[in-house]
Amino acid sequence: MAPGATLGIMNGAPESNPDLPGRLLARLREELPADAILTDPDVTASYAHDMASFCEAGAPAAVVLPRTVEQVQHVMRTATALRVPVVPQGARTGLSGAANASEGCIVLSLTRMDAILEINPVDRIAVVEPGVVNATLSRAVNEHGLYYPPDPSSWEQCTIGGNIGTASGGLCCVKYGVTAEYVLGLDVVLADGRLLRTGRRTAKGVAGYDLTRLFVGSEGSLGIVVRAVLALKPEPRGQLALAAEFGSAADACAAVCRIMEGGHVPSLLELMDRTTIRAVNDLAQMGLPETTEALLLAAFDTADPAADLAAVGELCAAAGATEVVPADTHAESELLLQARRLSLTALEAVKGTTMIDDVCVPRSRLADMLEGTARIAEKYDLTIGVCAHAGDGNTHPTVCFDAADPDESRRARESFDEIMALGLELGGTITGEHGVGVLKKEWLAREIGPVGVELQRGIKQTFDPLGLLNPGKLF
Amino acid sequence: MAPGATLGIMNGAPESNPDLPGRLLARLREELPADAILTDPDVTASYAHDMASFCEAGAPAAVVLPRTVEQVQHVMRTATALRVPVVPQGARTGLSGAANASEGCIVLSLTRMDAILEINPVDRIAVVEPGVVNATLSRAVNEHGLYYPPDPSSWEQCTIGGNIGTASGGLCCVKYGVTAEYVLGLDVVLADGRLLRTGRRTAKGVAGYDLTRLFVGSEGSLGIVVRAVLALKPEPRGQLALAAEFGSAADACAAVCRIMEGGHVPSLLELMDRTTIRAVNDLAQMGLPETTEALLLAAFDTADPAADLAAVGELCAAAGATEVVPADTHAESELLLQARRLSLTALEAVKGTTMIDDVCVPRSRLADMLEGTARIAEKYDLTIGVCAHAGDGNTHPTVCFDAADPDESRRARESFDEIMALGLELGGTITGEHGVGVLKKEWLAREIGPVGVELQRGIKQTFDPLGLLNPGKLF
Repeated sequence: MAPGATLGIMNGAPESNPDLPGRLLARLREELPADAILTDPDVTASYAHDMASFCEAGAPAAVVLPRTVEQVQHVMRTATALRVPVVPQGARTGLSGAANASEGCIVLSLTRMDAILEINPVDRIAVVEPGVVNATLSRAVNEHGLYYPPDPSSWEQCTIGGNIGTASGGLCCVKYGVTAEYVLGLDVVLADGRLLRTGRRTAKGVAGYDLTRLFVGSEGSLGIVVRAVLALKPEPRGQLALAAEFGSAADACAAVCRIMEGGHVPSLLELMDRTTIRAVNDLAQMGLPETTEALLLAAFDTADPAADLAAVGELCAAAGATEVVPADTHAESELLLQARRLSLTALEAVKGTTMIDDVCVPRSRLADMLEGTARIAEKYDLTIGVCAHAGDGNTHPTVCFDAADPDESRRARESFDEIMALGLELGGTITGEHGVGVLKKEWLAREIGPVGVELQRGIKQTFDPLGLLNPGKLF
Repeated sequence: MAPGATLGIMNGAPESNPDLPGRLLARLREELPADAILTDPDVTASYAHDMASFCEAGAPAAVVLPRTVEQVQHVMRTATALRVPVVPQGARTGLSGAANASEGCIVLSLTRMDAILEINPVDRIAVVEPGVVNATLSRAVNEHGLYYPPDPSSWEQCTIGGNIGTASGGLCCVKYGVTAEYVLGLDVVLADGRLLRTGRRTAKGVAGYDLTRLFVGSEGSLGIVVRAVLALKPEPRGQLALAAEFGSAADACAAVCRIMEGGHVPSLLELMDRTTIRAVNDLAQMGLPETTEALLLAAFDTADPAADLAAVGELCAAAGATEVVPADTHAESELLLQARRLSLTALEAVKGTTMIDDVCVPRSRLADMLEGTARIAEKYDLTIGVCAHAGDGNTHPTVCFDAADPDESRRARESFDEIMALGLELGGTITGEHGVGVLKKEWLAREIGPVGVELQRGIKQTFDPLGLLNPGKLF
């Protein structure tokens, strides 16, 4: 049964009320133009899933694509009046099913609210609607000499609203942090249609509980973000990267520890294991070195990146690197990054389907995480490629499997879970940047414990007493 | 009437139960050693106030000084059983009365829980108890080549627990951000004595709602922080500063805008007005230039601070600086910083009492804020010195008054309020870093509006259904 179905019944809708779909559409049409409401099942079905394609999803009653805050308010007032669940969506590039439709829900796609309302170089802020694509914003602020750091792999597709909902990370986090650190203030339409303004457009502010931060990573379960004030940084210099090859993952992880312990501040510190390297070569013929067990990519956007790379290269060599290759140009560096960005797509091509873990451990435990993951792959006789935001200890063990093979699918799920258990055992978290969605619900409870779950449910109840917002996600 | 008194009555305690003090002490003594409970009214009175000395406060029934988490749990279980309000305290250096006692409350001082439990240079974290003094932690991590940035002016006295409760800022925020950005995880004793663990010790993590951030700045109203995992940075190079003198505050503010717009990343960018400069000279004979209307201090801890200072010096000159004096040594730079750190103390000496505003505006509106503040000082015939974390737009207009003069006190309060109204009008916040406490309660509601207040109250209700934790603060 789809996650939303239970809740639909609990709320006395839609099952208990056969006229509901007609009434729902009639009410929606009162304040939404015809082209903002999709009901053709072939079309709405394409809105049912994010990129965690194997996660369960229901069939939406309708997909709505509002262009204004008032239209979003109308959708939420309608949903509240008729007790219909609402699933907010961006570009559906999420990896945990957090944007998957519930049975009979309204899918609320924010993609048409895609205006950049303001870019202010003195205040170093941008004000945007939620449907702005990450790359579009990044390029727009670059033109003002500014930088919006969060850069998930899907940055050419994903929206800022989705980034806020899932608290996205990316490659730059090791130096620049995650989405949460760039969200200063929000306009949010609440479940009942009221508008809440949180936070600020100032550099600092501590007026009351931090509601802004509460919405970041809440996966649309507390309200619909319709406007965001984002902090920007000055645009850094172009970064220079190096690649270091290692005969073992343990050596590469030791290098990561020495680099961070040494006080270096790389703008990127990534790891790809042999499986990932081969997958990327297979997909894109990039000529990455296939004889190595682990490839470390480090980059600096400092005043003297060559000097920093030289120092880091020495640390890699001391940790046992068999080869250290600094890129001489920004273009060469970009190529290395591109290889890293292709990793998840490349691993997906191995067997057709992947389950992407997102375990973040203290970086001092990174070697234990990789070693344990290799053991799990062997135990379940599976291909598990690992790429990692190594500088943050954030690993993406990616279980490659054939979804048409029930036994392999079962083993995939079991190994996926065992990897999360290992992460918790090592003092880590089940999700560094992808979120919980439907994929890791049980694991959220294991990580935060019963007291944490009780308080989170209390917060949910405060914001969404009828349980209409993205039901069945998180917990 | 003291803020706690109402609540005491509402909860049927202590007024409605004359035996309460005796029962309370008996219960507390069951699991706390004798030296952890203070009841001598002369002694407990010294715990009634933070540094906002004019804010109202009640008389505590007892002050408890636990040394362990279990003792804190016992205090909270006792408080819940007997319905006694609890006011958590650090070093009482706060500036908004947030740590002021409620009538008949237990003051829960965390100052004896002052252990640094761990400093980890690979993971770049420290794990501390709440009573650790900010400067003690800062120096301890320095020995490992690490840096804990948040540096409120009171850093030699204030505790990390207090910093977390009030979400403190400091001089370094313009580059390094505020306390909230350095709190990764917390252990919190809830109102009913249960222990909640939030967050993580990893660099990233998005498992569920961000409860950690919810506690930061909550002024002890949601739970008692008993342990914190803090993020650390590599220790920066020593910073070099310059001082620039301006013939008007507007010129100094224009320089701030040009510096930030130019993509510079100063480690400090502070402003002192003439009143503040004179007050500091009077207090500490520092020989600051008294003929100037506004002094701007800028510092850099970059690879080449002299070059950055030269560029910023030119921007200051272009904005109308009458004199630009770069410090040649770190020692000279430290002296300038020391002058800035003394500002609030120096202004307090002018008339004996101060009300320190903490309005943060978008930095593009800084000039309007200073001009408006000068107008307000004139209107109310008061001395209002302004020092500001100018790079963040965070001003501290400081109303100097004689608390024994009722008319001056009334004018002081009115001007203090008018300054906050101006801040909101300019798109700012009533508090950039000092918090709400009892001083700005009405203003919090004005800033966040009725929907915001309703949701904040809902969160409070979830965490503290009996309203025992620091009642009468925030809202």
